[in-house]
Amino acid sequence: MSKDLVFYTNPQSRGGIVHWMLEELGVPYKIEYLEYGSSMKSPEYLAINPMGKVPAIRHGDVVITETAAICAYLADVFPEAGLKPEGDALGPYYRWLFFVAGPFEAAVGLRACNVNLNAEQEMQLGCGRLERVTDVLADAVGGRQYIAGERFSAADVYVGAHIGWGMLFGTLEKRPEFVEYWRELQNRPANRRSEELAEKAMSKQA
Amino acid sequence: MSKDLVFYTNPQSRGGIVHWMLEELGVPYKIEYLEYGSSMKSPEYLAINPMGKVPAIRHGDVVITETAAICAYLADVFPEAGLKPEGDALGPYYRWLFFVAGPFEAAVGLRACNVNLNAEQEMQLGCGRLERVTDVLADAVGGRQYIAGERFSAADVYVGAHIGWGMLFGTLEKRPEFVEYWRELQNRPANRRSEELAEKAMSKQA
Repeated sequence: MSKDLVFYTNPQSRGGIVHWMLEELGVPYKIEYLEYGSSMKSPEYLAINPMGKVPAIRHGDVVITETAAICAYLADVFPEAGLKPEGDALGPYYRWLFFVAGPFEAAVGLRACNVNLNAEQEMQLGCGRLERVTDVLADAVGGRQYIAGERFSAADVYVGAHIGWGMLFGTLEKRPEFVEYWRELQNRPANRRSEELAEKAMSKQA
Repeated sequence: MSKDLVFYTNPQSRGGIVHWMLEELGVPYKIEYLEYGSSMKSPEYLAINPMGKVPAIRHGDVVITETAAICAYLADVFPEAGLKPEGDALGPYYRWLFFVAGPFEAAVGLRACNVNLNAEQEMQLGCGRLERVTDVLADAVGGRQYIAGERFSAADVYVGAHIGWGMLFGTLEKRPEFVEYWRELQNRPANRRSEELAEKAMSKQA
């Protein structure tokens, strides 16, 4: 018997990335919606994620938190979905998953919070300024259909969503490299399905 | 023929984590030392890592940057070293690799830079305050020999080094959970070898 797969999310959260990933997998899963400030901070949910954040998943008895970790885990344990690359493509796969989850998220978040680091702090934090991480990411996707090798992977879900939503919400410049890379990714049926499900959930909330 | 494995580092950098990981693998590799502010910003090295940071590795034609990405990549491509868990242990493996590379590093870095986030910024950044990520990580390692399942893995190299060095440099509280977890990890022969090699490199620099 296959293990239960439960997805904890809020339609207005990074959970959308995991939702897209789950739709790419094509396996059954159950959604539990949580509200900011209330159910997300309940003892029941803090037992799942003590950070009190969504998304998280529970797969059988195993809990996974952190959006990129969930994408990497699902790609590994559902190999039939073909979302984990092999061979040389594993290099850029891990490189860009961790680059976006680490320095990129940090630099975007700090800018959004109007925190400006001086040169020494920049070195200490190691994330670099938003301009630099933006340049590096634009170079990584420039002229490429997929970020790791010649096939779509979980890294495209994670990196693509950050790029697409970053441009949508104005936290990331609309560079031509980003627009090109996102054009086909955003139209993947799995992404469209997860967007529709999130919209339905939001209209129920309202 | 096996592919060349080149390790770009500075003995006073997070490269020490990759050095430990390489020593755990037991495969041959070549070290290239780079200096802050000079060779680390040279066009030759920026072609390897456009962030101008160490560590990085080159494995054959593939470049990998980001410390945690390098650990995850090496665990995958050298399966005979047994540093990647299987089954349920994959959940905590990815969870804690990304937790430390993301929210934990961000929270420690911000505190070291004396940046204090207000409640709204904290939510926007999603990393939470240092106290919270410290509590969560202490719970994750508390009473455990290894962070993912019952065997040592690349996640112990990455998480363990952050905990051990954090306590050493005073950026992380000396909680009993951390002290216990680190006690055996630090004495692994591969960690001791990488420390000795770093000390030799530093005395040559001086």
